[in-house]
Amino acid sequence: MELNSLFLNSWLVKNWKIALAALLVIALANFVRYITKLQRYTKIFEFSKHRKTLLDGEEYVGADFNSKGNKRAPDDTTPNNSYVPALKVDKHVPFNGATVTLPGGPKQFYELANNRRSVRSYSAKRIPPLELIEECIRAASTAPSGAHTEPWTFCVISDPNIKQHIREIIETEEEMNYAQRMHRQWTADLTPLRTNHIKPYLTDAPYLILVFKQIYGYLPNGERKQHYYNEISVAIATGILLCALQAAGLNSLVTTPLNCGLALRKLLARPENEKLLLLLPVGYAADDCVVPDLKRKALKEIMHLY
Amino acid sequence: MELNSLFLNSWLVKNWKIALAALLVIALANFVRYITKLQRYTKIFEFSKHRKTLLDGEEYVGADFNSKGNKRAPDDTTPNNSYVPALKVDKHVPFNGATVTLPGGPKQFYELANNRRSVRSYSAKRIPPLELIEECIRAASTAPSGAHTEPWTFCVISDPNIKQHIREIIETEEEMNYAQRMHRQWTADLTPLRTNHIKPYLTDAPYLILVFKQIYGYLPNGERKQHYYNEISVAIATGILLCALQAAGLNSLVTTPLNCGLALRKLLARPENEKLLLLLPVGYAADDCVVPDLKRKALKEIMHLY
Repeated sequence: MELNSLFLNSWLVKNWKIALAALLVIALANFVRYITKLQRYTKIFEFSKHRKTLLDGEEYVGADFNSKGNKRAPDDTTPNNSYVPALKVDKHVPFNGATVTLPGGPKQFYELANNRRSVRSYSAKRIPPLELIEECIRAASTAPSGAHTEPWTFCVISDPNIKQHIREIIETEEEMNYAQRMHRQWTADLTPLRTNHIKPYLTDAPYLILVFKQIYGYLPNGERKQHYYNEISVAIATGILLCALQAAGLNSLVTTPLNCGLALRKLLARPENEKLLLLLPVGYAADDCVVPDLKRKALKEIMHLY
Repeated sequence: MELNSLFLNSWLVKNWKIALAALLVIALANFVRYITKLQRYTKIFEFSKHRKTLLDGEEYVGADFNSKGNKRAPDDTTPNNSYVPALKVDKHVPFNGATVTLPGGPKQFYELANNRRSVRSYSAKRIPPLELIEECIRAASTAPSGAHTEPWTFCVISDPNIKQHIREIIETEEEMNYAQRMHRQWTADLTPLRTNHIKPYLTDAPYLILVFKQIYGYLPNGERKQHYYNEISVAIATGILLCALQAAGLNSLVTTPLNCGLALRKLLARPENEKLLLLLPVGYAADDCVVPDLKRKALKEIMHLY
């Protein structure tokens, strides 16, 4: 058969030793490449697998700076009493319940809270005394926190130059956020609130409060201290801060300056364990201030009784 | 040479066609396996890569259910006006600033907030009327939220059987948390607060409030709606809730039941878009209630002026 004769006379058959050797080399090379890549991807896979097997809720716990992570190491045989609690508590004391309340109870409190609106336009002339701000932050700092770590830092800015600098940092990033980084549905969802990358309130408001979460702290011996659930704790403190500002007759706005945290942290020379969570302009609403005519959800939409 | 003759007479040389074919088949099989694995790992790698290049702050935004993610897709040429805002706002209205305040201002508010303590021991006999709880949740729901999405669900449990069931779920998980999952430093850090996996307050407290974050919502047309910064928003609402409970003379405790979210969500038949963030027992402190003799940080430790 012609085909058979073609095959028997082919280069491959005549030089089968070379061909076999070449094939072996290629197979070996592929095998080495495969193993190498596999190792690389396996590492990432292990990482992802770890993320996937995080306990439900564990993602909120805190900074995972400890080599042993937040979880107990399987080989950790240190006796329990060799771990010293970060918190010093001398004793427990009797507690008689809530003794300071509001005369009008929760109804009065609801009316207070319900009167709060997010304000994007501030009077630059009416400047509240700093003592008001201090008292509000003092109230915020009564928030509960994971293992009483109090993982919050409130930076209060009144210096016009620093406010200007903050505004420049945020407007530069926000211009990119609105133009490129945020999904169009997001920018569309913000149009009813009339927000864009121009933020006059950052220089008009007499105070800016930058709320940092401390993702870890330090023990007296200089070792790092785990700050459990620090983000949730700091957001809860901010909720209390908003109520205090309202009680003081002050207006504010909770903002989340996307991608500005590092620049703002450096501008204020805050340490590495602090991460910006929120920024609130604080002051009195401008005379021509308007707010969107929003409705809030009815109780039956948000509360379910069992 | 003996070695050469051995080689020429070997099975391999005699059956070189079969050997060659076998080698080709092995090489092909390996190649297919390699490509398949690579594809799988590449997907995970792309995911990890994406996570690493998140913008600072972007991790808080919301559920990434959209195929285009939170970021604008580079090939998205849809005109901006084809995205409809989820929020309907008919008009903007003049705002005259905070008109409902506290007579004692922020000082009075600080005293209210500072009187709040985390309570782990409740009277099972003194039962506050449900109206008080409702008013407090109404106050919490005035919290600001990303693009006014109001991403919270408050489940109020008063049924003793459901409370018992919740207690069983949490105690089972917490026993494992304390014994195996939590780092020993963590359990050590909790000893001053005298907490362990036994939680009588879950059945003693007349009410349990389970605070769910809605990681996404639904538009009228059934499509998913992005809930920006839902976790921060819900934690802020919880901060307001704590103040309202205090104003009502009620005690509570903010807890984070680790790894119980799914079981509790299913027990309460909550939908998939809701994820448990916090659980608060609510009621009046027991007569023999004690609290750790904690100090709170001084203002100068937490506030910095610029």
